[in-house]
Amino acid sequence: MTRVYNFSAGPACLPEWVLKKAASEMLDAHNSGMSVMEMSHRSSEFQDIIDTCKARLKRLMNIPDEYEILFLQGGASLQFTMIPLNLEKHNVDLINTGQWTKKALKEHEKFGKVNVVASSEEDNFTYIPKIKQEDLSEDSDYVYICENNTIYGTKYKELPPHEGKLLVADLSSCILSERTDVSKYDLIFAGAQKNMGPAGLTVVIIKKDLIGLADEKTPSMLNYKTYADNDSMFNTPPTYAIYICGLVLEWLETQIGGLENMEKINRQKAKLLYDYIDASKLYSNPVVPEDRSYTNVPFVTGDKDLDTKFVKEAKEAGIVNIKGHRTVGGMRASIYNAMPLEGVEALIAFMKKFEEENYNA
Amino acid sequence: MTRVYNFSAGPACLPEWVLKKAASEMLDAHNSGMSVMEMSHRSSEFQDIIDTCKARLKRLMNIPDEYEILFLQGGASLQFTMIPLNLEKHNVDLINTGQWTKKALKEHEKFGKVNVVASSEEDNFTYIPKIKQEDLSEDSDYVYICENNTIYGTKYKELPPHEGKLLVADLSSCILSERTDVSKYDLIFAGAQKNMGPAGLTVVIIKKDLIGLADEKTPSMLNYKTYADNDSMFNTPPTYAIYICGLVLEWLETQIGGLENMEKINRQKAKLLYDYIDASKLYSNPVVPEDRSYTNVPFVTGDKDLDTKFVKEAKEAGIVNIKGHRTVGGMRASIYNAMPLEGVEALIAFMKKFEEENYNA
Repeated sequence: MTRVYNFSAGPACLPEWVLKKAASEMLDAHNSGMSVMEMSHRSSEFQDIIDTCKARLKRLMNIPDEYEILFLQGGASLQFTMIPLNLEKHNVDLINTGQWTKKALKEHEKFGKVNVVASSEEDNFTYIPKIKQEDLSEDSDYVYICENNTIYGTKYKELPPHEGKLLVADLSSCILSERTDVSKYDLIFAGAQKNMGPAGLTVVIIKKDLIGLADEKTPSMLNYKTYADNDSMFNTPPTYAIYICGLVLEWLETQIGGLENMEKINRQKAKLLYDYIDASKLYSNPVVPEDRSYTNVPFVTGDKDLDTKFVKEAKEAGIVNIKGHRTVGGMRASIYNAMPLEGVEALIAFMKKFEEENYNA
Repeated sequence: MTRVYNFSAGPACLPEWVLKKAASEMLDAHNSGMSVMEMSHRSSEFQDIIDTCKARLKRLMNIPDEYEILFLQGGASLQFTMIPLNLEKHNVDLINTGQWTKKALKEHEKFGKVNVVASSEEDNFTYIPKIKQEDLSEDSDYVYICENNTIYGTKYKELPPHEGKLLVADLSSCILSERTDVSKYDLIFAGAQKNMGPAGLTVVIIKKDLIGLADEKTPSMLNYKTYADNDSMFNTPPTYAIYICGLVLEWLETQIGGLENMEKINRQKAKLLYDYIDASKLYSNPVVPEDRSYTNVPFVTGDKDLDTKFVKEAKEAGIVNIKGHRTVGGMRASIYNAMPLEGVEALIAFMKKFEEENYNA
């Protein structure tokens, strides 16, 4: 068995500690004589798994008591519909920072008015637009942001002003990568498949007083209240994905030592890579330095053929899924929690070698 | 490691062959150097997994070319909303055979008129009501059934008449347990967690000409067209659940030899158990014999305390999740594909011993 360094943007690499534990428990988890996949979601064994998972998330993120944690399906994409269906009013001020806010916009518009308060689209989303309170609409109910933009490699370092309005944020690609002050948000959501576990699980962290406001005609499966009232088990939840998420959270607590440590490691990984790119003659990162993501690092050589060669040779060297998104081109290294420092060092070593072999100053 | 016989109604037992393969591939699947959980859904490795899974399902169920296979999330429960949202008209003739048709009814009513054309509720759902064509409403668009009723242990042996109307069927607890003539249906759906794989995956088999009829305001994630147009990968699908489903289908093809063989084994298992129950003085099954399910077998002693004792002692003997649903009481043995004949034999041996120890004629 040879493991590779997997820089995929999501689904993404998971800690080997998690995978080894999952493999060892595949036929008999917790002395139950069965796999977690085979457990009834109504069993005490699974109840313990979901309770522990939720408690770990609450502890790790320091989630205040006035927030509810919901485990859902359908990906972040289904939240683009559930959010307007569940919040009492649907007029939104949206800051457009890439493909995921554009997709959110398209779905939100089916339910209410969307005002694009700022956008960096004209610069291919290479920065986070800074807005002021007076830029917001008078009649908007919430401000919508995507906090880390996976494709473009940008991240909010400060939340936008939103006085008198709710703040709704997509944290899919930065959740658990650093400390987050949950109390600054009204609704956080994240697909699990980048930093929390496998695809097929979506986590929503929502202020309790925002639950139960949906119209009575709202489908039960799209109503946050259904999940809040039934401990996320109105119907069968994605049990195995919740189990793996629980293992990832266990790894964060027991092997890493919490989000403060994780944040330090992640900052170190990002600094190493950006410093190398900025010093290099061959590679460049298109993002405004102050808005650079800590988890997704796009870079280009400026020569499409050379980019293609890079991706091919990197794969041969065990550095995979490094190709950039088609809208940005070049390469992208996603360096989520489970990517070890050694992986980033291996990438930089490969980049150096490739530069030496392919670039004549 | 001691494996138990797990009679759970779902999530349910999986073939050991599947679990062993999944465990062995957990850190390095298909020589990719990574787990399937870590694979990008846009990678050629995962494309191969989803393509193979779909092809196996088409082959096993002999699904005609004019049907589309969709991989979704949200469980069968989300289909109660997606079906009326996607079919052009929403008036439905529903046959009420238990909790799952009642839940479907409640959600369908949010979108259109629901006529309960027949119900066995007054007899605690112990039979399948037989209807005639003239019982159907003049203005209904489709007939809705739950083909196998997990809780009550009933199953349609013949489909209801539905001339001039579509037939929509929930096959969650009987799909792949026998040969199915897909051409008799217009839309089949099933949560995977009983007979196909882990929770978190829902399969829809739908006539292609019924796709694309939804209103343009329909949320993208609730529109079958989104999935049909994007090979079920508009957004990240539940990749690992699809992989495990693929392994279950591989097991059915290569280890069992297809659905004809599976059906024979399942009929044998059910006959053994029903014959024993019918001959026993202690146990009885409340269902009309002609409507008995092949996959879910409820039985009672008629004495609640004795039922409780049975469940407790069975567990000590490695026969678990045998407790009946609270609305039926007693016990229930779910004997899906992955429950081997030996498991049913072990159950019967335990039932005999328990009867000898606890019943005086």
